Amino acid sequence: MNRLSAWGIEGIGEIIPGDQVGDIIVSSCAPGSEYELHDFDVLVVTQKIVSKAEGRLVEIDPNDPLSHKQLVEDEAVRIVRRRGDLIITETKHGFICANSGIDLSNVERGYAALLPLDSDRSARRIRDIVKAKLGVNVGVIVSDTFGRPWRKGLTDVAIGVAGIAAVVDLRGTPDALGRTMQVTEVCIADELASTAELVMGKSSGIPVAIVRGTDPSWFRDSTMSEIVRPPQEDLFR
Amino acid sequence: MNRLSAWGIEGIGEIIPGDQVGDIIVSSCAPGSEYELHDFDVLVVTQKIVSKAEGRLVEIDPNDPLSHKQLVEDEAVRIVRRRGDLIITETKHGFICANSGIDLSNVERGYAALLPLDSDRSARRIRDIVKAKLGVNVGVIVSDTFGRPWRKGLTDVAIGVAGIAAVVDLRGTPDALGRTMQVTEVCIADELASTAELVMGKSSGIPVAIVRGTDPSWFRDSTMSEIVRPPQEDLFR
Repeated sequence: MNRLSAWGIEGIGEIIPGDQVGDIIVSSCAPGSEYELHDFDVLVVTQKIVSKAEGRLVEIDPNDPLSHKQLVEDEAVRIVRRRGDLIITETKHGFICANSGIDLSNVERGYAALLPLDSDRSARRIRDIVKAKLGVNVGVIVSDTFGRPWRKGLTDVAIGVAGIAAVVDLRGTPDALGRTMQVTEVCIADELASTAELVMGKSSGIPVAIVRGTDPSWFRDSTMSEIVRPPQEDLFR
Repeated sequence: MNRLSAWGIEGIGEIIPGDQVGDIIVSSCAPGSEYELHDFDVLVVTQKIVSKAEGRLVEIDPNDPLSHKQLVEDEAVRIVRRRGDLIITETKHGFICANSGIDLSNVERGYAALLPLDSDRSARRIRDIVKAKLGVNVGVIVSDTFGRPWRKGLTDVAIGVAGIAAVVDLRGTPDALGRTMQVTEVCIADELASTAELVMGKSSGIPVAIVRGTDPSWFRDSTMSEIVRPPQEDLFR
């Protein structure tokens, strides 16, 4: 039976610029502990600690609630929609999200955290360190919390991937009635990010989760280009 | 430690109109089996079997690949976008999705499956049967597979909920640095649907999954109105 399980890694302290997230995970996942990693585990790491470790923090005026709005425009390649304080932008990575992914929660007062410059590279670095130091092959997903145009509430999605498919293509796989299916490309990276969010919570200070039980055939090289829809295919830009 | 686990219920056969999905789940989840249900479990049930059980099947011409396109318009309250064969519609429920949620996979040749008329009611009926016959309080989510405007790949989302919050409001909960957070309303129903999808697959014939380990405080009455964004708040309709 295919049983999936997910749990957060507790006890990871505050991350500061210059930290290596991969090393911090390695030191938290000692063999024999409840966080011992296995081949085909997926590590889901929140964007916030990756951005902090990579020094993607910018000083803002803590007394001006709009002081990071210029940053939002600087980090955007395009403003997609604007209504009141809400700005939906397209980032340099091709993500379409609120405020260019910049936010102030879980960041020291007076600072804003920007998205990692290259979140696939961030994921790959974590994967490489875990492989080198613990000898296990894991998938790594850097996750962030995005809104959706027609559905209220936020969900966690992938913004960087390494060692695990972003999208699994089930086109042509026969359905349960034995016929060829039309199109079913499942974005498992986003589904794994959402699974991890359920054990992290937003305010509980758990920035990394382990997801075990994912189909081993899904582990391969991949990048966010599998997820980011090119502008020419986009009906809503 | 908050550990989440998810597994699919195997052995559920073909569903036919008139079946009660709740009864079928009860007969699959015998006490003592690996599918024994506990209080605060979440049952995620795919739309397809709910639609079949509720007789939401319509005959189509199996030799005309476009024969269900009229159905798509009949089930829509509005066409949101159209490009070639792809039609994005707003359904009577307020969902914005491809083809009004109608699809042909895992349905007998010559038929199309429409969405349940009231998928919250479908979820509630399953929850009530499980509670009456097994004496356990579970959350129930009816799930479907939707696309997203700016991200490739499909993910499973909730289209009906009962007994579990659709959206958990973390506004005002202090973040890990002790400050009040701005806005964090998490759509846990969609995240649970995505979690379940990872153990169902699209072609493996597993239409129901159990998710265990969800925060007990999230179990309460709810409806899809927590998720469906009203037109006046929508920037992309």
